[in-house]
Amino acid sequence: MSRALEAMGIIARSVEKVSRDIDEEEVEGFVDSLLEAESVFLMGAGRSGLVARAFAMRLMHLGFSVHVVGETTTPLHGENDLVVAISGSGETSSVAEMGEIVEESSGTELALVTGSRSSTIGRLADHVVELPGLDELEERLGVEDISAYAPLGTLFEETVFGFLDGVVSRLMERQGQTEKDLALRHAALE
Amino acid sequence: MSRALEAMGIIARSVEKVSRDIDEEEVEGFVDSLLEAESVFLMGAGRSGLVARAFAMRLMHLGFSVHVVGETTTPLHGENDLVVAISGSGETSSVAEMGEIVEESSGTELALVTGSRSSTIGRLADHVVELPGLDELEERLGVEDISAYAPLGTLFEETVFGFLDGVVSRLMERQGQTEKDLALRHAALE
Amino acid sequence: MSRALEAMGIIARSVEKVSRDIDEEEVEGFVDSLLEAESVFLMGAGRSGLVARAFAMRLMHLGFSVHVVGETTTPLHGENDLVVAISGSGETSSVAEMGEIVEESSGTELALVTGSRSSTIGRLADHVVELPGLDELEERLGVEDISAYAPLGTLFEETVFGFLDGVVSRLMERQGQTEKDLALRHAALE
Amino acid sequence: MSRALEAMGIIARSVEKVSRDIDEEEVEGFVDSLLEAESVFLMGAGRSGLVARAFAMRLMHLGFSVHVVGETTTPLHGENDLVVAISGSGETSSVAEMGEIVEESSGTELALVTGSRSSTIGRLADHVVELPGLDELEERLGVEDISAYAPLGTLFEETVFGFLDGVVSRLMERQGQTEKDLALRHAALE
Repeated sequence: MSRALEAMGIIARSVEKVSRDIDEEEVEGFVDSLLEAESVFLMGAGRSGLVARAFAMRLMHLGFSVHVVGETTTPLHGENDLVVAISGSGETSSVAEMGEIVEESSGTELALVTGSRSSTIGRLADHVVELPGLDELEERLGVEDISAYAPLGTLFEETVFGFLDGVVSRLMERQGQTEKDLALRHAALE
Repeated sequence: MSRALEAMGIIARSVEKVSRDIDEEEVEGFVDSLLEAESVFLMGAGRSGLVARAFAMRLMHLGFSVHVVGETTTPLHGENDLVVAISGSGETSSVAEMGEIVEESSGTELALVTGSRSSTIGRLADHVVELPGLDELEERLGVEDISAYAPLGTLFEETVFGFLDGVVSRLMERQGQTEKDLALRHAALE
Repeated sequence: MSRALEAMGIIARSVEKVSRDIDEEEVEGFVDSLLEAESVFLMGAGRSGLVARAFAMRLMHLGFSVHVVGETTTPLHGENDLVVAISGSGETSSVAEMGEIVEESSGTELALVTGSRSSTIGRLADHVVELPGLDELEERLGVEDISAYAPLGTLFEETVFGFLDGVVSRLMERQGQTEKDLALRHAALE
Repeated sequence: MSRALEAMGIIARSVEKVSRDIDEEEVEGFVDSLLEAESVFLMGAGRSGLVARAFAMRLMHLGFSVHVVGETTTPLHGENDLVVAISGSGETSSVAEMGEIVEESSGTELALVTGSRSSTIGRLADHVVELPGLDELEERLGVEDISAYAPLGTLFEETVFGFLDGVVSRLMERQGQTEKDLALRHAALE
């Protein structure tokens, strides 16, 4: 089998493995905090930032008031707002800096989706969802040198994309929304 | 099991299923066209555009001259350049419009990664990689109403993200690069 | 005097000249339509799009509900919303395409800031502000070959940036806001 | 005269005033450093970042290898590259952080366009262009409470936009390029 498709298969199995190991209560707590927030702000750097944007787009389709930190018209976060940070290491410096600002703001909560609960941003956050065992996937999947198949943060980025789309499905269920409801809020121009 | 993690599992199984069904020659032809291009231009709308950006970032880490159509400093494509379109339906209007411009440009090739080979952009493209069977995943995975688990283009977006990271792994193999080579080209500031 | 500063002076005189020639009623009508809108959507291509974003940022500082067409979390426009197009020629194809969509949407108004009232988008728009005489500035300012000092759309882009910041000042006056009010809504992280 | 057009006139006069007060040698030194650089990297936060992007777009039209810090495909800066920071105060934290990284990189130069030479970034930079007297424009133009006409960084943002377009004109002159040369490199799709 070609290396490209072999790597794609390893990625799929990693997402599948993590989906079985995440703490379900943590996930439901995250869903609650999204549903309770007045506005939701997403942030992340590099490819995690792109995945954060993809989730933000679906929250918009779901009818949330949602913004991406650093975009043109993003207002200042305020009381009853939720800031969601996406960071594999939990150490990304620009995200941590914003995390500190959020924690000093009265009434704004900080959630983190990460591979490492015991990180700088993890210690700041009010809610953490840990995608567990990313470090041990090599062993668990029986792959030799997983970095040749999924370099740098690839496994976190792929896994968190799958996880956040899972959260979208749960939000649809909680709010009784169907695909048609989302389609109605889709941008007119592509 | 919570709906969020159930949906995440369905996404993982979809990526896995598609990885076994893609045409390997098509993939290797796409890898060849990337390696032969002077500059690579990525384009896509909405969430497919975000996945296109994530792939563009890795091509930059691999040392490619790469641009995203519509970004600030993206030059005009020229001879020996490759434009890669990401479109699930192969019908996205802004992408199709650019596809026509590319096809009229002498010496620039157009590649498409899509769920539908027999689409408007599919007919324009010099190279097509089809992620097959996305329409039939409901049946194949035995899921009732898959749109409640993965609404709108979710399965394409998740699958193409996994596929393009598979291509990154193959490019590393073809060029003899390791994770360390990529890390050296990583942006200094996050 | 160095060419750079000579060109900068010509740009300044162009902005000044246009500020004396704009129709004041047109401007006040545009200000009214901004104040009456539920949400404001900005759009523009290339450098006009960047100027549109700079105006959108100030509208956010003023407390408006404001979005930029094409950004991640921009919802679909709806009733009582205003879409503002920035286009020197009034012919930019992606902007015109969106203009047509807006005009077919019941209850959404379209405003255009342009150098050419009698353009495709000009004919679609409910409100037009024309920055007049951009074509004749060469003659009016006594400059030979102005395109060497201000190539392509430079004079429109510079003039519309000045104009839109003028509109910000008028909005502050109409709403009784001061610089301090704007500063309070400024993004926390830069 | 309406407030909007009055403010627009004040902005025009500010740009004109600053164009007469800039140090011509500083400007020519900046032009030299642009022409000598292998690649140019632009950076700025907020509206200064948008103006930086507008300048980057023109450098691309002029045929430069140019990137914007923080965009998707921006590579790591290297030897013989020039990083250009746009910051009114010279204190913007993300820009200063990047400035420090650049100064520690062997062979990369840092230029700053600012209202304040004696700032944090000003002290780091190899080349500074100061747009002088922005603090004193109220007095010089005989305007009472200029912040009601041009709040926050408006006068810097407007002035630096005019200045950078002046630099474009000088680069055209130095390289013997005409508007037609720039138009040929303009993006195909708008």
